[in-house]
Amino acid sequence: MLKDIANIVRGLSADAVEEAKSGHPGLPLGCAEIGAVLYGDVMKYNPEDPHWINRDRFVLSAGHGSMLLYSYLHLASYDLSMEELKNFRQLNAKTPGHPEYEETAGIDATTGPLGQGFSNAVGMALAERMLAEKYNTTESEVIHHYTYTLLGDGCMMEGITSEAASLAGHLGLGKLIAIYDDNKISIEGSTELAFTESVGDRFKAYGWHVIDSIDGHSVDEIREAIKEAQQEEDLPTLIIAKTHIGYGAPNKQDTNAAHGAPLGEEEIEEMKKGLGLPVHEKFYVSEDVKDFFAKRRKVLIAEYEAWQKEFKGWSEAHPELKEAWDAAFGLELPKDLREKITGLEISTKAATRKSSGEVLATLADHVHYLVGGSADLAPSTNTYLEKYGEIGKHKYDGRNFRFGVREHAMGAIANGISLHKGLRPFCATFLVFTDYMRASIRMAALMKQPVIYVFTHDSIYVGEDGPTHQPVEHIEALRLIPNLKVIRPADDEETKEAWLQAMENTSGPTALILTRQGLPHIKKETSVTHMNKGAYIVSKENDKLDVTFMASGSEVSLAVEVAELLRDKGKGVRVVSVPDKDKFLEQGKEYIDEVLGDGDALRVAVEAGVGRGWYQLLGNKSHLVSIETFGASGPGEKVAEKFGFVAKEIEEKLLKQL
Amino acid sequence: MLKDIANIVRGLSADAVEEAKSGHPGLPLGCAEIGAVLYGDVMKYNPEDPHWINRDRFVLSAGHGSMLLYSYLHLASYDLSMEELKNFRQLNAKTPGHPEYEETAGIDATTGPLGQGFSNAVGMALAERMLAEKYNTTESEVIHHYTYTLLGDGCMMEGITSEAASLAGHLGLGKLIAIYDDNKISIEGSTELAFTESVGDRFKAYGWHVIDSIDGHSVDEIREAIKEAQQEEDLPTLIIAKTHIGYGAPNKQDTNAAHGAPLGEEEIEEMKKGLGLPVHEKFYVSEDVKDFFAKRRKVLIAEYEAWQKEFKGWSEAHPELKEAWDAAFGLELPKDLREKITGLEISTKAATRKSSGEVLATLADHVHYLVGGSADLAPSTNTYLEKYGEIGKHKYDGRNFRFGVREHAMGAIANGISLHKGLRPFCATFLVFTDYMRASIRMAALMKQPVIYVFTHDSIYVGEDGPTHQPVEHIEALRLIPNLKVIRPADDEETKEAWLQAMENTSGPTALILTRQGLPHIKKETSVTHMNKGAYIVSKENDKLDVTFMASGSEVSLAVEVAELLRDKGKGVRVVSVPDKDKFLEQGKEYIDEVLGDGDALRVAVEAGVGRGWYQLLGNKSHLVSIETFGASGPGEKVAEKFGFVAKEIEEKLLKQL
Repeated sequence: MLKDIANIVRGLSADAVEEAKSGHPGLPLGCAEIGAVLYGDVMKYNPEDPHWINRDRFVLSAGHGSMLLYSYLHLASYDLSMEELKNFRQLNAKTPGHPEYEETAGIDATTGPLGQGFSNAVGMALAERMLAEKYNTTESEVIHHYTYTLLGDGCMMEGITSEAASLAGHLGLGKLIAIYDDNKISIEGSTELAFTESVGDRFKAYGWHVIDSIDGHSVDEIREAIKEAQQEEDLPTLIIAKTHIGYGAPNKQDTNAAHGAPLGEEEIEEMKKGLGLPVHEKFYVSEDVKDFFAKRRKVLIAEYEAWQKEFKGWSEAHPELKEAWDAAFGLELPKDLREKITGLEISTKAATRKSSGEVLATLADHVHYLVGGSADLAPSTNTYLEKYGEIGKHKYDGRNFRFGVREHAMGAIANGISLHKGLRPFCATFLVFTDYMRASIRMAALMKQPVIYVFTHDSIYVGEDGPTHQPVEHIEALRLIPNLKVIRPADDEETKEAWLQAMENTSGPTALILTRQGLPHIKKETSVTHMNKGAYIVSKENDKLDVTFMASGSEVSLAVEVAELLRDKGKGVRVVSVPDKDKFLEQGKEYIDEVLGDGDALRVAVEAGVGRGWYQLLGNKSHLVSIETFGASGPGEKVAEKFGFVAKEIEEKLLKQL
Repeated sequence: MLKDIANIVRGLSADAVEEAKSGHPGLPLGCAEIGAVLYGDVMKYNPEDPHWINRDRFVLSAGHGSMLLYSYLHLASYDLSMEELKNFRQLNAKTPGHPEYEETAGIDATTGPLGQGFSNAVGMALAERMLAEKYNTTESEVIHHYTYTLLGDGCMMEGITSEAASLAGHLGLGKLIAIYDDNKISIEGSTELAFTESVGDRFKAYGWHVIDSIDGHSVDEIREAIKEAQQEEDLPTLIIAKTHIGYGAPNKQDTNAAHGAPLGEEEIEEMKKGLGLPVHEKFYVSEDVKDFFAKRRKVLIAEYEAWQKEFKGWSEAHPELKEAWDAAFGLELPKDLREKITGLEISTKAATRKSSGEVLATLADHVHYLVGGSADLAPSTNTYLEKYGEIGKHKYDGRNFRFGVREHAMGAIANGISLHKGLRPFCATFLVFTDYMRASIRMAALMKQPVIYVFTHDSIYVGEDGPTHQPVEHIEALRLIPNLKVIRPADDEETKEAWLQAMENTSGPTALILTRQGLPHIKKETSVTHMNKGAYIVSKENDKLDVTFMASGSEVSLAVEVAELLRDKGKGVRVVSVPDKDKFLEQGKEYIDEVLGDGDALRVAVEAGVGRGWYQLLGNKSHLVSIETFGASGPGEKVAEKFGFVAKEIEEKLLKQL
């Protein structure tokens, strides 16, 4: 039966791609049996409750093979009609080109950029272990599921996959089962062209259990391999499944022509003939297959109901755990959190990374599901939660991750943890290294995952480490990513507020941009809580307005210094702190004009980085203090001097314009 | 003697970090013997001609250990005085925090961001093989050198290293010798925290020759291992050297405290005592060591002179090869190149990626040292040079690379090829995947390497593949990187010009941003050669100016369409094509005003991506047509409609403002 199902899926996938005149038939045809065993046999899920927390997860890391997933979701009675399959890749359909989280029921992660999905799966498997550790009791295993992921040659070649696989091996994630669609074909042709390593040996070196290899078209071998993988509890498993890309397409099978373009009507007809499918019927599903999934569904729902019953019992027996569970899965914050955070005493002249560390330590005390770590920079990013334990091999009761120097996987694993639900992840590195993880930051934003990033060492003030370690373009580059909230606080007080806003932002990721160097506490004439509008007035002119300063982060105190010098010369000066420029721009003209004041005054933006993002707020009379080249190695203050970030120098330049 | 040299270097490194009150003593102390064997024994170089093309290359991938390199460059008589060592990490010194290419003689690559240097070394070793293939004759081996790289745990964990190592194994780069500083310590502590894979087995899986392991403090073992590595001609070699981080520091050795902070005076004194160095003398170099390097220098210069003689003989015997060599190493372009390119007939309604493919094919015919490839997207990026062969294992006479799905390593390998000199590399992928390689693009810009990037599928017009594959923020994000030239041509003619400009730009990388979809040829009232100023007038208003359009790439033809509609309504409309916005901004106010015309007219920028980069060119009366959210899956034209990229709709909006 599973073999029949696989062939039906081949027909559906080929027809959908053909209908769309666009798409990737190669993987669905090549992995149809793998999908059949997963959805038809081994996986635990409930199509009526696709968010069921204890479902097995499945991440199609090779997201271009989306029709495999859509076909199975349809057959397995998820809310995905035949009409949607026929609308594959059309605007507003639930069947977009690549699987999109929340757009389609049953999709556990948005995938497509290669290696991201695999790394998400590592995060999900890690979250499962941590939640099992936290919530399971001797009587009840309320969390116990597997995480499956299917990846191809492309995913295997990406560095992010190596990073995540190394970490998964290190952590001994025994309930992670990765299936490698080893079809020897990539877009340019045979993998012989570029990819001749031994994947099995590589994964063994990472500490994985490797099943090398099985016939990816044998339902029995797939089932056996998955059983073996499930039995191996101490190590993650890689199943190397030898498959034929475009299996069944008589002329295109085993060629790159099958990968990413419709097969053509004729080829599809011949394929259907060969597979025993009705040749002229499009989108054909046999009654047998429908019956099979109807029965399967009953079995699955019975399992689901059994779990619900167990969960109810557990909830009643452990009200304190249930309370923690509800808070975690609902991302609830304690009512007095603001009070607890704003009440913190932070030493003056602290770097915002240090203020951040103190805030984070307190947040961790009050938000038990907050977990995180850094890419081997905990001592510098101040992100280690001293009071709480550490995650390690088969040791999942901690709250600190050790991601190693693996920024890209760190981002994607955090996405996976967040997608899993039940934990709120943060992760940290130097701002300049966001370049290493930009693709996973984008995925968090696209999937609306509330990951929190702690990016420290945020400008040329980094100093001696020099231009390779001094971000110049990075703050503005992050601000460009849709749905990523970027907050750059100016002092201890703004850092508290920034963290609160990050915690409150549950519809997308937040990046906190923090300094390496110490910063003074800034006296503010209006409340720092106005930060929730992106910008607010730090100090106001006495009567008429000559100059308005706009700045974020460490440049706010510099602006304050320049303002003092100008005020001494009798000028009317306003200083506006803009920790979240995008948020400020969203407020609309009225608030912006109110905060920035008279449009005829000279507007000055100060940013220790590329400045062009500020033009939108600068008027006709404007001055920009920015850094449009790479930085330089030297003590931070000397480097700042070199780039003209000195109050006296800025003052002189401005006086000439006033 | 080499052991004594190592200890002298320990003293120098510890003293310099102490003097700077900043830096990383751990690696220089831990790898001092490795450096001694390389600079004191096995490496071929000439301190008087640091750019000698046939020198052995050395890339310190773990760039934070810069004092190791500076110490040896100083001892080996490179132009790096003791004064410079004493000025370690000070502004304008030749001893910046991380090694910087061209800032210091003898530095083969700027390193620091981990894994980049290792991947550069792969590119250098590949370039060596290709140039050897091209220029060596039966009598003369004018190219025959090794590429050494030293990397630590941090580099080993980075995905980029995995990508590059897999490719190096695939290509059988026998003259690449990587030494792994296996000291079991990373910044957060023991590598047991996050990194427990078997590195040796992993590299064997990539197809490397692995020497696992040697005592990294035994000069003899290091020398033997390097000899063995040199003898292995078919495979790259990884030497796993067990070392002690901070070797010799009595209290900090083998701890993360030795990694990235000064040891402290007391610790240094104790260290010096233990190593038999004068305890109170700072920056001590013994006369023995000076004598040793003076002698070594003579030997090296004799080798160099022998090569010069051989090279002279070769030049005379093979004038045609010498001519090719000079062109390649001087990046000379044929005088008639412009003519050849502008004369090309390109089908109308071609996607710029297709026009680009045709231009590139012709360029390759005329610029023999132009080589490149894509990250498994050659058929889509149109970057395969059909007339020329392919690089493969021990097959180095081609010009096409198969990078595999390894964008990050692709970028860094291209940097290495470019740094090596003798070849001009291009590389290609989809624009959205620049996120995967941003760190290596930045390094190209920082090192001023003339790498050419072909980034196709440049907007939501990608269509069906959906938001994961539709760049929105990427064009502007690339424009933010200092010294990266970004050109987005609007049609076939601009594509020709863009490639010419890319070829002519030898002081940094150039990114060509190209469409997936077909574009009409645009009729232009002024010459496309004005593109060299970043922007030019495509069509002018008749008399008074009501609207000026600014756009790049595919949006120029859309702007032309809207302009026609408005002109039909009697409006005075100008259309300006801005393929290189940064270049345009550099021209200054006069040219900008001349091109954009009357500042009181409505200025409209059209960009199928985040628009904020245009505010600098928009005046008081302005309108921005842009996309500030992620895209959507559907046929390209439908997606464009969804986002309002339709001439009629834009016209209507503008009419309301006129």
